[in-house]
Amino acid sequence: MKEFYIADFKTDEEITDFFIIKTIALKLGSNKKQYLDLLVADSTGEVTAKKWDISDSELPSINEIKDGDIVKIKAVVTQWNGLKQLRVMKVRKKVDNDPIELMDLIKAAPERAEDMYEYIYKRAEDMEDKHLKAICIKLLNENKERLMYYPAAQKNHHAQLAGLLYHIKRMLMNGERMCQVYTNVNADLVAAGVILHDMEKLNEIDSNELGISTGYSFEGQLLGHLVQGIKSIEKVAEEIGMPKEKTIMLEHMILTHHYEPEFGSPKKPMFPEAEILHYLDIIDARMFDMADALQGVQPGEFSDRVWTLDNRKIYKPLGE
Amino acid sequence: MKEFYIADFKTDEEITDFFIIKTIALKLGSNKKQYLDLLVADSTGEVTAKKWDISDSELPSINEIKDGDIVKIKAVVTQWNGLKQLRVMKVRKKVDNDPIELMDLIKAAPERAEDMYEYIYKRAEDMEDKHLKAICIKLLNENKERLMYYPAAQKNHHAQLAGLLYHIKRMLMNGERMCQVYTNVNADLVAAGVILHDMEKLNEIDSNELGISTGYSFEGQLLGHLVQGIKSIEKVAEEIGMPKEKTIMLEHMILTHHYEPEFGSPKKPMFPEAEILHYLDIIDARMFDMADALQGVQPGEFSDRVWTLDNRKIYKPLGE
Amino acid sequence: MKEFYIADFKTDEEITDFFIIKTIALKLGSNKKQYLDLLVADSTGEVTAKKWDISDSELPSINEIKDGDIVKIKAVVTQWNGLKQLRVMKVRKKVDNDPIELMDLIKAAPERAEDMYEYIYKRAEDMEDKHLKAICIKLLNENKERLMYYPAAQKNHHAQLAGLLYHIKRMLMNGERMCQVYTNVNADLVAAGVILHDMEKLNEIDSNELGISTGYSFEGQLLGHLVQGIKSIEKVAEEIGMPKEKTIMLEHMILTHHYEPEFGSPKKPMFPEAEILHYLDIIDARMFDMADALQGVQPGEFSDRVWTLDNRKIYKPLGE
Amino acid sequence: MKEFYIADFKTDEEITDFFIIKTIALKLGSNKKQYLDLLVADSTGEVTAKKWDISDSELPSINEIKDGDIVKIKAVVTQWNGLKQLRVMKVRKKVDNDPIELMDLIKAAPERAEDMYEYIYKRAEDMEDKHLKAICIKLLNENKERLMYYPAAQKNHHAQLAGLLYHIKRMLMNGERMCQVYTNVNADLVAAGVILHDMEKLNEIDSNELGISTGYSFEGQLLGHLVQGIKSIEKVAEEIGMPKEKTIMLEHMILTHHYEPEFGSPKKPMFPEAEILHYLDIIDARMFDMADALQGVQPGEFSDRVWTLDNRKIYKPLGE
Amino acid sequence: MKEFYIADFKTDEEITDFFIIKTIALKLGSNKKQYLDLLVADSTGEVTAKKWDISDSELPSINEIKDGDIVKIKAVVTQWNGLKQLRVMKVRKKVDNDPIELMDLIKAAPERAEDMYEYIYKRAEDMEDKHLKAICIKLLNENKERLMYYPAAQKNHHAQLAGLLYHIKRMLMNGERMCQVYTNVNADLVAAGVILHDMEKLNEIDSNELGISTGYSFEGQLLGHLVQGIKSIEKVAEEIGMPKEKTIMLEHMILTHHYEPEFGSPKKPMFPEAEILHYLDIIDARMFDMADALQGVQPGEFSDRVWTLDNRKIYKPLGE
Amino acid sequence: MKEFYIADFKTDEEITDFFIIKTIALKLGSNKKQYLDLLVADSTGEVTAKKWDISDSELPSINEIKDGDIVKIKAVVTQWNGLKQLRVMKVRKKVDNDPIELMDLIKAAPERAEDMYEYIYKRAEDMEDKHLKAICIKLLNENKERLMYYPAAQKNHHAQLAGLLYHIKRMLMNGERMCQVYTNVNADLVAAGVILHDMEKLNEIDSNELGISTGYSFEGQLLGHLVQGIKSIEKVAEEIGMPKEKTIMLEHMILTHHYEPEFGSPKKPMFPEAEILHYLDIIDARMFDMADALQGVQPGEFSDRVWTLDNRKIYKPLGE
Repeated sequence: MKEFYIADFKTDEEITDFFIIKTIALKLGSNKKQYLDLLVADSTGEVTAKKWDISDSELPSINEIKDGDIVKIKAVVTQWNGLKQLRVMKVRKKVDNDPIELMDLIKAAPERAEDMYEYIYKRAEDMEDKHLKAICIKLLNENKERLMYYPAAQKNHHAQLAGLLYHIKRMLMNGERMCQVYTNVNADLVAAGVILHDMEKLNEIDSNELGISTGYSFEGQLLGHLVQGIKSIEKVAEEIGMPKEKTIMLEHMILTHHYEPEFGSPKKPMFPEAEILHYLDIIDARMFDMADALQGVQPGEFSDRVWTLDNRKIYKPLGE
Repeated sequence: MKEFYIADFKTDEEITDFFIIKTIALKLGSNKKQYLDLLVADSTGEVTAKKWDISDSELPSINEIKDGDIVKIKAVVTQWNGLKQLRVMKVRKKVDNDPIELMDLIKAAPERAEDMYEYIYKRAEDMEDKHLKAICIKLLNENKERLMYYPAAQKNHHAQLAGLLYHIKRMLMNGERMCQVYTNVNADLVAAGVILHDMEKLNEIDSNELGISTGYSFEGQLLGHLVQGIKSIEKVAEEIGMPKEKTIMLEHMILTHHYEPEFGSPKKPMFPEAEILHYLDIIDARMFDMADALQGVQPGEFSDRVWTLDNRKIYKPLGE
Repeated sequence: MKEFYIADFKTDEEITDFFIIKTIALKLGSNKKQYLDLLVADSTGEVTAKKWDISDSELPSINEIKDGDIVKIKAVVTQWNGLKQLRVMKVRKKVDNDPIELMDLIKAAPERAEDMYEYIYKRAEDMEDKHLKAICIKLLNENKERLMYYPAAQKNHHAQLAGLLYHIKRMLMNGERMCQVYTNVNADLVAAGVILHDMEKLNEIDSNELGISTGYSFEGQLLGHLVQGIKSIEKVAEEIGMPKEKTIMLEHMILTHHYEPEFGSPKKPMFPEAEILHYLDIIDARMFDMADALQGVQPGEFSDRVWTLDNRKIYKPLGE
Repeated sequence: MKEFYIADFKTDEEITDFFIIKTIALKLGSNKKQYLDLLVADSTGEVTAKKWDISDSELPSINEIKDGDIVKIKAVVTQWNGLKQLRVMKVRKKVDNDPIELMDLIKAAPERAEDMYEYIYKRAEDMEDKHLKAICIKLLNENKERLMYYPAAQKNHHAQLAGLLYHIKRMLMNGERMCQVYTNVNADLVAAGVILHDMEKLNEIDSNELGISTGYSFEGQLLGHLVQGIKSIEKVAEEIGMPKEKTIMLEHMILTHHYEPEFGSPKKPMFPEAEILHYLDIIDARMFDMADALQGVQPGEFSDRVWTLDNRKIYKPLGE
Repeated sequence: MKEFYIADFKTDEEITDFFIIKTIALKLGSNKKQYLDLLVADSTGEVTAKKWDISDSELPSINEIKDGDIVKIKAVVTQWNGLKQLRVMKVRKKVDNDPIELMDLIKAAPERAEDMYEYIYKRAEDMEDKHLKAICIKLLNENKERLMYYPAAQKNHHAQLAGLLYHIKRMLMNGERMCQVYTNVNADLVAAGVILHDMEKLNEIDSNELGISTGYSFEGQLLGHLVQGIKSIEKVAEEIGMPKEKTIMLEHMILTHHYEPEFGSPKKPMFPEAEILHYLDIIDARMFDMADALQGVQPGEFSDRVWTLDNRKIYKPLGE
Repeated sequence: MKEFYIADFKTDEEITDFFIIKTIALKLGSNKKQYLDLLVADSTGEVTAKKWDISDSELPSINEIKDGDIVKIKAVVTQWNGLKQLRVMKVRKKVDNDPIELMDLIKAAPERAEDMYEYIYKRAEDMEDKHLKAICIKLLNENKERLMYYPAAQKNHHAQLAGLLYHIKRMLMNGERMCQVYTNVNADLVAAGVILHDMEKLNEIDSNELGISTGYSFEGQLLGHLVQGIKSIEKVAEEIGMPKEKTIMLEHMILTHHYEPEFGSPKKPMFPEAEILHYLDIIDARMFDMADALQGVQPGEFSDRVWTLDNRKIYKPLGE
């Protein structure tokens, strides 16, 4: 277990612990000497680190370290223009016996992936509509392995281990209530839309098993997860014999859930279930981003401007 | 009680019943004769009506009829370019003993105003935050009489008797769940925002006691219910001694709940409770408008284009 | 063969000839008498027509006439506020032996459908890329019957018999030259994009065999021909074993050919062949609409404002 | 009195004089030594300054210097990539007896604050409308102290000592003529709008007594000076018994003076006085920014791009 | 002199007087009889008029009446759906001896054209800059005849006899003050811009000598008065030997005075004189349109929505 | 002839060859020593270069080197964060006898300027319309010298030696085919539009004889090449006696070829030839930019984001 978390670093403290490498680069200083420029992270945040003097004998092992690797670092915490920084004395890649708890090192959804998956799976099993149930069950099964760790985005909302499951689960919870309030709405259709709406993010973005996205796939860039989702539903719908109207309505929900053309939806929702799906999606993203922005903000203060929130600054109240 | 509802009219049927006058005009036909051109309504819809021959002796009583009056009509149902229309034989204003049930004649929220008011009032009473509780209770009490019938809009969503209460109640119901899912959110603040966000529509739009808006007030046109709401909160907050931070946050929620500058909000929400308020508002409006658009649409068909839904046509599925 | 073309009508002339019914309605005049209100057309234009007195014995045969029917009309050409109009004396539906040349009655592309189809088919056969060739040939074969008459749009550009073929052919002709000028471009890919880009209009809009669109299909409204086109390519690509990269590029071309999100393309072209496809499409549409707008305009005059051309008026020069 | 003004610095000159600290930071050079990085200003401009070698004994006094302080500096003027810079030898905070003329050190409006205040106050006193006169007099009196130094903005137009008074005065001057040209306009209402339109900037932005803004207040960020202004007018109007119509019109003028929703005005002006107010405001801001941009530009040259002028470059003509 | 002004018509009054024909059309009633449908105007407003029975002997003289003609009408004032209307008994074209005062019949600027022209001409003569003086004098002289009656627009602001002169004069008056307030501004350049900015409206729109525009010219439609103005200045500048810098600056002022690309200015003002010109122009147009909208509005009421004012309704205060 | 091309540099290689200076600056390192910071280019690309130690004796000759100069450099190729860089040992300006082939050093159109000019000139000579022929011939002759080297833009598309000729030639080639497909189009008018549309870029941007733009001219900034082009056509048209309609149509084509107001065209094309001109222009620009973006991109990879292509990344396919 970790002893030193980034969020708790104290200036001048000497620390020895494990971190994940976000970026690593060997640079030439203005004094013509090489130094190592690092960005390292754990589950509580990120910090820059410098190793100023590098002997020739260190170079081979340093050259082996790559983005995404877990390393052991010995360093002193310094202060630099008001920001903490590590002055590194030793750094090496993790070896097999190192006592590492992955969850200490990475950002992750606050619930166990298995529990969230089970919650979602159960909602699918409870559907009365046999076709919607069949397609949800089938795609949940097929994609189970990757759902256990996939983030819901490359950056921004739910860019975290199992973030996609967390996003789906919270949307299901809110959607359940709305289907009680708006009784004319088909609750199974809403739930199926929620479960499937972002499923093709699994093929649009690439992610390692730590839930850290490493970019967009070729197909993701050329088509995007909305169109990919429609292709996926079309294929499964044919396999399970889903009627044409229901198939097209489900595809329409995927197509329209970003709502605005400039965000990727060439059509707007044309029935209430599609409309609700959009709002469940956007609310959960916004709530995530706002909570994220407020992390570390003092009561009575504003966060920095948040790009995904139209550059707003978010306020944390003092209360009384 | 009514016998003949507009939604159930059959061609060639002779009917005698009570209706509300939406518009009435005495016109000159191209044959140079006067006729009466009417739009009449009951709780199930609207229909045009013509009285072709008007004797001089009828004129005085006809001249007394005005928009918003309840009248008794004897007429035959005709068909005109696919639309039903009434050929009126007799029309007169309601007199005192006429056996009228107001709810048969007007559009109204599907729940009793008293019940909805009580639900909302109770939510205010249950607040733990004493200031938010005090301001909600005070304004609910002061405005109770008009809340019993006010619509939530001049046209569009919740333009119906007690539509404003219905709008608030459904928002409270959805908001409750969201505060369970997003546990970092101040539930009392969300509820207070919901209860107060449209309260000044009471002074922005004019409405008769049937919940039919008759236009915008002078102050409504020059300032609008957002700014009016802030002025109202400022005044009550001072009376009840609400702390400054809480007052300004509440005012900010009112100011931002339309979200986009072009819809009247010069600022965007800067904390999660304000963000949620906006979405609770827009979802309820959209669900209302969609359900409204689908009234009378056959399964497997689309509605007409709906202006408040960006000119979308809404689809009613066949099911299987 | 027709004797009297609408474009050549002279006032006070008595005509007897065949026309197509665009709209027909039985209306009640302000003198309380029924009259027949018609919009009739032939290949040279449209004209309104009225039949003022309708005897009871005429009603049954008149009731049989529907939109899209071909009728024989005897009438006098009148002038009405500067517009020509027909005062109809007799009207009846076409019967089997009536000597009708369909092309006299409807708007049609100026070349024979067979010739255009053959030109396009040959371009597909000449492709060196075996997969692109296979998919084009297959879809041209499967859709041949409807291509013979389908318009390229409900209104606007190429809303004419075999307008879709005409649109494709002209785009192929321009595209050929561009692939000579821009030698880095894959000419087969451009040609395949041209041939397939609007193919699913066959399933997006409904058309009778006269090339007159009668509206949008259910799937057309919920998904649109871009997404429908991708689904169609996905299916055929799998059947013929087209490699994944090529399939996705072709789908991307379909997805992006409207270019702007607000016109239905959620992505913009990401390689030159997709970029060219868009411009071939828009140029052909604009040239069609401009030529259409200038029909009947006198040299030195402007056309009326044209909605599809951003409300521009188009100028026909005097020359010298 | 100052001897060395920044605008007149000559390379290699040794100077000793007083300046204001805009920013100060202690940094670590790439040679691992500390240096002091400064931005200093006087009434004629700004210049960067570096103190390269810092002895341990200097540190305590240097640590006392903060943004906004006045310091005495001994330095040599150097040239750095075409820009002047100071190589600092000594720096210390001002002490009590230092012979400083504040106006030499800061940007300020070109007229005396007292004179401008008097001009504005007199215009209020000359009003025939007793309510408008009363509210203007009251708020001018209450805010007099801060008006003497407040800038009209954090950056951009009139971000200078007493810039707010200067802005108001110039608007009053132009407004006087317009009320002569447009005789249907209520001149007192225009003047009251001018005097009050930005008054709540006093509570929206924070400023030190040098007219240098140090950021936005909590209420300023959540509501903005338009809404704050309405609240202020509402309160005073009640105190002085201003009739409702006049109060709401004045509030409407405050609400609409930014004109466009995206600049903070949810409504547009609905009477001529409000319309004029907007244009008086924008003209004065633009004239300020253009004159500011042209400072230091050579005849026949363009300024740099100016963000507040839509990134335009402004031209200074050669004349003949 | 006129006896009966449209603004003063009383129901059932019989009137005989002169009016201008705005539109005239011979129509067929639903009773199959011809009637005359007129829109007639005088300096106080417009009113519709109908002549119901037209004998064959009247037709020849009626056929001679055209839009823009002055006619003598004998009629009774009737009331129609709350609007006044004339039931015409006799109508004939004006003959030579008819005692007509043109200003009674048309909308006109409230000052004499000669006086306004003289004011403007004098401002030009007073210029110190000899080139600007020369170009203004020359173009004022050349265009004097048409300036005496030209409106400043086809519809909207200053669409009235000599409206262009009135527009220029009021802009000069406001501009004079601004050049006193903003002393860095070249007053002659502003005045020259004002005098020349709309001069080519003389060639962009067609107008009869009553100041009623009858449409846009060919060149006006293809180029517009901004580009036409630049061509005109280029030509005269060469004739009078104006230096290149001054010529281009003046052309730039013409080019930019509409300010926004979508209103016809591809560039924005790049020096203060051009910026001021734009605002002088827009303020005068807005003040005209607002005053125009308020004509006939009762105190305490709003005008109808005004298209040229972004569909705003304008308010006329009650005062006290 | 060059031996070492930038695109082929290998790390650690020592090179001696000629390059063009894009930028040169003498800077002070953090170690307080001067060094030389260079960006140098040849026909295959650009590379940064540093000369770290500069002796006093080197300074005079270094101070003579300016942007745009050709220099001889002796250096070692190093690797810096994955980018190649030159460590310069010697650098001097080119002297008279240095064996330099200009085309080795700069970006240039892939065809000989003389050939392209001849192709364009011949198209003008072949015109049947004598006026269009005359104006094209005249302006081609007058501008021949600068056309031989002018780029078509400061940056972006065709920013290369003789890029303007290359742009015109390719547009002519595509335009020829379109005039065959759209037979209603005046081919001479299209060709004249193509030849003249950007001719005034010669006076809008400044360029040295290497086709490297050094900025915008005064007139270019205040008016732009569209308005400048109209002024030029107006003048020549008068000289050659071109009829007014043709002159204005040609000017309209220049005015509208950017199509959108925000790109500088205040009007949209109002006849087919102007419409085609726009699309010929934009297609050629886009094809240039896409081909440019793909230079150096590996098959199966995307380019960086390209600003002139709306920040798209462009894809280079693997093929099979």
